[in-house]
Amino acid sequence: MIVVLKHGVAENKKQQLISWLEKQNLRVNVSEGDYQTVLGLIGNTSHVDTDLVASLAIVDSVKRITEPFKCVNRKFHPEDTVVEARGAKVGSGNFALIAGPCSVESEEQMVGIARAVKAAGATLLRGGAFKPRTSPYSFQGLGKQALDYLSAAKKETGLPIVTELMDISQLELFDDVDVIQIGTRNMQNYDLLKAVGRQKKPVLLKRGMASTYEEWLMSAEYIMSEGNPNVILCERGIRTFEPSTRNTLDLTCIPLLRKQTHLPILIDPSHATGKYALVPAMSMAAVAAGCDGLLIEVHNDPQHAWSDGAQSLRPDKFDTLCKNLLSMHEYLGAMPRIDYE
Amino acid sequence: MIVVLKHGVAENKKQQLISWLEKQNLRVNVSEGDYQTVLGLIGNTSHVDTDLVASLAIVDSVKRITEPFKCVNRKFHPEDTVVEARGAKVGSGNFALIAGPCSVESEEQMVGIARAVKAAGATLLRGGAFKPRTSPYSFQGLGKQALDYLSAAKKETGLPIVTELMDISQLELFDDVDVIQIGTRNMQNYDLLKAVGRQKKPVLLKRGMASTYEEWLMSAEYIMSEGNPNVILCERGIRTFEPSTRNTLDLTCIPLLRKQTHLPILIDPSHATGKYALVPAMSMAAVAAGCDGLLIEVHNDPQHAWSDGAQSLRPDKFDTLCKNLLSMHEYLGAMPRIDYE
Amino acid sequence: MIVVLKHGVAENKKQQLISWLEKQNLRVNVSEGDYQTVLGLIGNTSHVDTDLVASLAIVDSVKRITEPFKCVNRKFHPEDTVVEARGAKVGSGNFALIAGPCSVESEEQMVGIARAVKAAGATLLRGGAFKPRTSPYSFQGLGKQALDYLSAAKKETGLPIVTELMDISQLELFDDVDVIQIGTRNMQNYDLLKAVGRQKKPVLLKRGMASTYEEWLMSAEYIMSEGNPNVILCERGIRTFEPSTRNTLDLTCIPLLRKQTHLPILIDPSHATGKYALVPAMSMAAVAAGCDGLLIEVHNDPQHAWSDGAQSLRPDKFDTLCKNLLSMHEYLGAMPRIDYE
Amino acid sequence: MIVVLKHGVAENKKQQLISWLEKQNLRVNVSEGDYQTVLGLIGNTSHVDTDLVASLAIVDSVKRITEPFKCVNRKFHPEDTVVEARGAKVGSGNFALIAGPCSVESEEQMVGIARAVKAAGATLLRGGAFKPRTSPYSFQGLGKQALDYLSAAKKETGLPIVTELMDISQLELFDDVDVIQIGTRNMQNYDLLKAVGRQKKPVLLKRGMASTYEEWLMSAEYIMSEGNPNVILCERGIRTFEPSTRNTLDLTCIPLLRKQTHLPILIDPSHATGKYALVPAMSMAAVAAGCDGLLIEVHNDPQHAWSDGAQSLRPDKFDTLCKNLLSMHEYLGAMPRIDYE
Repeated sequence: MIVVLKHGVAENKKQQLISWLEKQNLRVNVSEGDYQTVLGLIGNTSHVDTDLVASLAIVDSVKRITEPFKCVNRKFHPEDTVVEARGAKVGSGNFALIAGPCSVESEEQMVGIARAVKAAGATLLRGGAFKPRTSPYSFQGLGKQALDYLSAAKKETGLPIVTELMDISQLELFDDVDVIQIGTRNMQNYDLLKAVGRQKKPVLLKRGMASTYEEWLMSAEYIMSEGNPNVILCERGIRTFEPSTRNTLDLTCIPLLRKQTHLPILIDPSHATGKYALVPAMSMAAVAAGCDGLLIEVHNDPQHAWSDGAQSLRPDKFDTLCKNLLSMHEYLGAMPRIDYE
Repeated sequence: MIVVLKHGVAENKKQQLISWLEKQNLRVNVSEGDYQTVLGLIGNTSHVDTDLVASLAIVDSVKRITEPFKCVNRKFHPEDTVVEARGAKVGSGNFALIAGPCSVESEEQMVGIARAVKAAGATLLRGGAFKPRTSPYSFQGLGKQALDYLSAAKKETGLPIVTELMDISQLELFDDVDVIQIGTRNMQNYDLLKAVGRQKKPVLLKRGMASTYEEWLMSAEYIMSEGNPNVILCERGIRTFEPSTRNTLDLTCIPLLRKQTHLPILIDPSHATGKYALVPAMSMAAVAAGCDGLLIEVHNDPQHAWSDGAQSLRPDKFDTLCKNLLSMHEYLGAMPRIDYE
Repeated sequence: MIVVLKHGVAENKKQQLISWLEKQNLRVNVSEGDYQTVLGLIGNTSHVDTDLVASLAIVDSVKRITEPFKCVNRKFHPEDTVVEARGAKVGSGNFALIAGPCSVESEEQMVGIARAVKAAGATLLRGGAFKPRTSPYSFQGLGKQALDYLSAAKKETGLPIVTELMDISQLELFDDVDVIQIGTRNMQNYDLLKAVGRQKKPVLLKRGMASTYEEWLMSAEYIMSEGNPNVILCERGIRTFEPSTRNTLDLTCIPLLRKQTHLPILIDPSHATGKYALVPAMSMAAVAAGCDGLLIEVHNDPQHAWSDGAQSLRPDKFDTLCKNLLSMHEYLGAMPRIDYE
Repeated sequence: MIVVLKHGVAENKKQQLISWLEKQNLRVNVSEGDYQTVLGLIGNTSHVDTDLVASLAIVDSVKRITEPFKCVNRKFHPEDTVVEARGAKVGSGNFALIAGPCSVESEEQMVGIARAVKAAGATLLRGGAFKPRTSPYSFQGLGKQALDYLSAAKKETGLPIVTELMDISQLELFDDVDVIQIGTRNMQNYDLLKAVGRQKKPVLLKRGMASTYEEWLMSAEYIMSEGNPNVILCERGIRTFEPSTRNTLDLTCIPLLRKQTHLPILIDPSHATGKYALVPAMSMAAVAAGCDGLLIEVHNDPQHAWSDGAQSLRPDKFDTLCKNLLSMHEYLGAMPRIDYE
């Protein structure tokens, strides 16, 4: 960690700071420039509160050289993590295809879609029971009833269930859920992260729509530091100035985070783009960039054919897409790798 | 509400959509362009699920003409709301000065700061008991103990207490708290919003760091629609590309939201800028733009004078600033108003 | 085009507006809501100045239904454009690999790299002669001399040259240049766009780092409307809040713009990410998303092996990458397509 | 300047780098951490090409401690710069009020508005002759003719003229112009910056809509380093995710840049907000934050009263606003200052 002091700091204040740092078992290398003094902290800085140091009046800025996360860090856990959810594996070559409707609407719907996506190649089933909606007047999800419909679909198809947890109090209803999703709006709901960290079910952690990679990994660290190693990261688009898509899908996270963490990285092109016509191309791109799986919305409502969701694929399109994705995934696996380091 | 259909939509699908809309007690004005069809929905559209309509396969886009919020809307509640917290009034000319440290550290600290800020002119006392921190290894706040220290400071000075609630389970500890703060990371934690909507204490709702004005008002609507009319809005900076400040303070929200909502609007220049040297100028600007109050971090630690927080003012600076702010607030009140409609 | 009027507009002002619109050869469909009036403009709206209409005091907002661009619009030019630069074709299945160093440094360097990238499969050679640099004290490019070195490399290898034009006055030096690049900082330098529109060489138009898709297409429209149909679009990352990469690569532009325009779409993963280790994965992703080519920085400096550019690939890595890219491009061509409309 | 090396760098490459740096007249302080090596560069680093150093393969990151700008830096020019344009002073307590229409339309319009804004208190007259428009089909300004109308208005009222230069070739028409405006889209058009740096008229440099403070100051440095010291900075809103305003006005630049540069800082609330109803409040806020002046759009078109520009004030409103602004500016001048450092 590097601490740059402000110009013209009094010698006694500088010494107070240095001795305070040394009390934290750090060696301090002092480098006096013509204009500013720089302290290099040597030793285990993972417990140093960067925010606190940066907030000191004599400090200009602080720069971490080693990452602030430990459990999620590939440096201390070189091999890929494989998360297992009732038989379905995610990570390290185990490609996950999570598919299903945005909202659970009926048992019939869920069983129908579950059968269709399983036939296409999906490995897990998703469906929203508790729905975070911008408006209090919009449909908030069927709740407990939706969980029952998901269970029925699972019983029928064997597909493990992924669904979103919005509040700690709902956890007691999640007995038959296999993967707990933490949504983008709750990525920094730290009490919720701690709660899912204290239990053992795998957690699919969506990136906050305006969160940096580091904040995202720190949220994963909250879960892992409570004892749950089964965390799956999922990018779902970030908020930018571009109005044509709901969010901007940031696929660069795949190769970049691959170096920093051992956790599986999934992509959700449906929420990112908000438009089904963009889902096939962006799914292919995500696989080519090296993701560990996809979260794709699939909907089927024969009675109301006009009500396809804007971001949901129809099962027939999903079927073709799955074939393409799995074929390409295999094809890429045989290519020469280009490694740097 | 305007619904633009995609080019070349089949007549029968268009008719299905129109009759579905008419069943929701809306009149539908059909306008056939040379290239696209536009539906104008006339009637009470506040219960129409825009997301659902926009998601229909034959729909190109949807544009609301009337706002999606009702309780917070000035149209239906023309006079300014005045929120009252144990004697302290906020809104409609009642200027609120909320001051105190970022984190509660000790009873001595809290009582000392409370006396200082009261003397300077503060009308409410703030201090963090439960702290949302990016890292699980950073100080998470003193919790229950901090609430006791806040109570001691309140007993001593009479200043009502403002502190952040991070999870519903902490609500039972908030008996002596006067204003519940919902932090930027929880602005879309809808279960938490509903919970504070079901009780009667005033709620200070910080803007999400990447939330639009409309999303912010919709979160206030969540609280009000559960029955709690005592909501105070607080802008604290938004996330942008600019790296020199922690966030970008968006003061334009003051005149813009003033037209849309009757709720009081506060500004937090300390968190927005992250640098105490910027707090005085931005506080003055906020008052000149017409805000209803400020949330300012003040710190005092005589034993560790070198550890002033980067965004906290010292009591002596706060004292001068308060005089300037209150003087300008009064001065502005006497100026000719420039109204547009 | 839809024009939403403000609430409570006086009847005579509304009529003034309508007759002004009708004078522009538009039919106006008036839809009176309970709360607001909406005008639907029918006819050729491409010459209506949206900014002007939106600026009228009685207008609440304007929404275009048809796009404001004509020459670049796929609607009026359904088949893909193929741009040809001295034999090298770009677009409609003709995959372009543009490679070379960030800055031209010497004839030896350019000839060496040109040979290496040609052997690997590059179809065009790039190299900066005039360099837009944030600081006036940074190296600004070798200028005229660099153009001579590029010519030498072209003579040696036959590869057509792509290089950036920063000011109209440099155009007279570009005789031997085959594709004129307009950089991200000049995407809205309209006089420069008009100038390259008045000549016939192909133009590679980089997206402004904070420009929307529509603004980007409108800049292409500037070039085409002056008479030059040979425009190639190139995405190079947009500015977001994420600090880990120089920019955020927005691959979603590929499938989205494919529907809106007939122009070829290239991707520059080197500038977008700023890190060579991320270039291979993002290049593969770009091809999988359906781009028409790539712009990749390749550097080779045997004497100063430690000075590889942070975003430049070494020729050996580029060689492997090219094989992978071209193999995947062919493989994807044989896959079943998933079309929506 | 601090250079952090990558983990595990070979000793000989490290030594090559150090000796290369030492050849540039820098002392290098080497600090070996447990995990990484940090080089502290001591001496005059203003000519070190940060981009080049950062691009070296063995370098992890570079951090400047001293600013990369010299001419604009307050450190080397502690007193405020006062720019003088034909009698009108800007900076260091000389408050500038620049007013006028977005586009110059006729001599009658310009003379009328010039008289009105002068009477209200404006010190300079603005009006667009060359207009940067997103669409090639929108009105591009009256050009040369508009400059004549501006001259007529100046002759009539004595107000110095501010107008935008879009291309170097237009400079020969600017004889009677007093302040040359460089627009937001040209803030990084470096050849244009150099051209206005080689002449002596004052330059009003608008911030790029997605430019950082440092990039903005570096663009000012381009002008000053060519020999023209008369630069005025003007913030006009930045691009963010918020759709309700055209841009987000970033007033924090005022106190922050005040410490870094001696140049005057103006605010343009008209372009930032895009809505005239927001201009008065944001103008007051800008003055309270300490700006050196404002750029406000004023329009007057009695024959087409319905065509007020959305962001233009009517002269009567402008008149009241000016009184308020100038009164507050004086009032603030008498307040106790709160200084930090």
